[in-house]
Amino acid sequence: MIRETCPISPQVTVFEQEHFQGKCVEFTSECCNIQECGLDNIRSIRVESGAWMGFEHHDFQGQQFILERGEYPHWDAYSGSLSYHVERFMSLCPIYCASHQNSRMIIFEQENFMGRSVEVCDDYPSLKAMGWMLPEVGSMHVQCGAFVCYQYPGYRGQQYIMECEKHSGDYKHWKSWGSHCQTPQIQSIRRIQH
Amino acid sequence: MIRETCPISPQVTVFEQEHFQGKCVEFTSECCNIQECGLDNIRSIRVESGAWMGFEHHDFQGQQFILERGEYPHWDAYSGSLSYHVERFMSLCPIYCASHQNSRMIIFEQENFMGRSVEVCDDYPSLKAMGWMLPEVGSMHVQCGAFVCYQYPGYRGQQYIMECEKHSGDYKHWKSWGSHCQTPQIQSIRRIQH
Repeated sequence: MIRETCPISPQVTVFEQEHFQGKCVEFTSECCNIQECGLDNIRSIRVESGAWMGFEHHDFQGQQFILERGEYPHWDAYSGSLSYHVERFMSLCPIYCASHQNSRMIIFEQENFMGRSVEVCDDYPSLKAMGWMLPEVGSMHVQCGAFVCYQYPGYRGQQYIMECEKHSGDYKHWKSWGSHCQTPQIQSIRRIQH
Repeated sequence: MIRETCPISPQVTVFEQEHFQGKCVEFTSECCNIQECGLDNIRSIRVESGAWMGFEHHDFQGQQFILERGEYPHWDAYSGSLSYHVERFMSLCPIYCASHQNSRMIIFEQENFMGRSVEVCDDYPSLKAMGWMLPEVGSMHVQCGAFVCYQYPGYRGQQYIMECEKHSGDYKHWKSWGSHCQTPQIQSIRRIQH
């Protein structure tokens, strides 16, 4: 997986124990398997800069989740707040993102960029409130920057990170949104900024 | 609890079974105990208009959570995405909110509106990225509209809904943020719009 990094150089420190204790490793670029970096598991995280994408399994597989600048003292409590309890956090990579002003994507009613479409260039805690009447999205094209799309309104449930830098920003079927994706349900979308 | 409702008249339908099945009740104003309305529990929700605040216990007690326009077919899956699994959803009320343009609050470093302060009038998935270096907030004053404050970056973890219409928008100590609040940790904040 080759990806450009953010203009602000990304940096994250992950710890084997809660509350930023125990063995720790700092990353400034992707890591496809934290066990190969000498950590058994990740139990706390400090994101120093940039926005990061975490994955349940190694090699960027399984449920994905966004980690933004700040402190995550209890990975278990945080992962309990994802759509299902993610037992492990095994790989991570920086997210290529643009400024809020430039972030832009198009969502389509049907797969393969068919049917009614709408341009998204803001944060929408409820797509329905902006006039998108379906609880699903068929396909998406990211024109600039990166977005998180969520299963439920209010940025809850399964989350999928969509980047302009990844396969030309084309996500033509819900099965391409993530390795664990099981539904086209998308009800809130927001921009990612480093 | 007396509260003004949104200019758009709020409406929500709650169902005793998943996927909008079984006994259902429609609300256009607050309900302090869904069991008194003939429902044993809530297992799916359709928010038709407005933004709503749900509570774990009756009389607006326990963990609170925002429900925005859209569909929540599996309450269990949604509640699993809160900071801890909320077994029950027993009371609800509409949130008084302003337009995004008018929403405005001040956050303070210390309790009782002391210490360094910053005005918040946008959505901040990471307070740290906007220059607030602490992982905590000491007190808050909502000047206009309503906000959701979250324990972790990226709108995750414990959530607290702060309204200008509720005790004059003053939240002078983290213990006043909600009946279940156990920490001053706040790392992301966003505006609520109906």
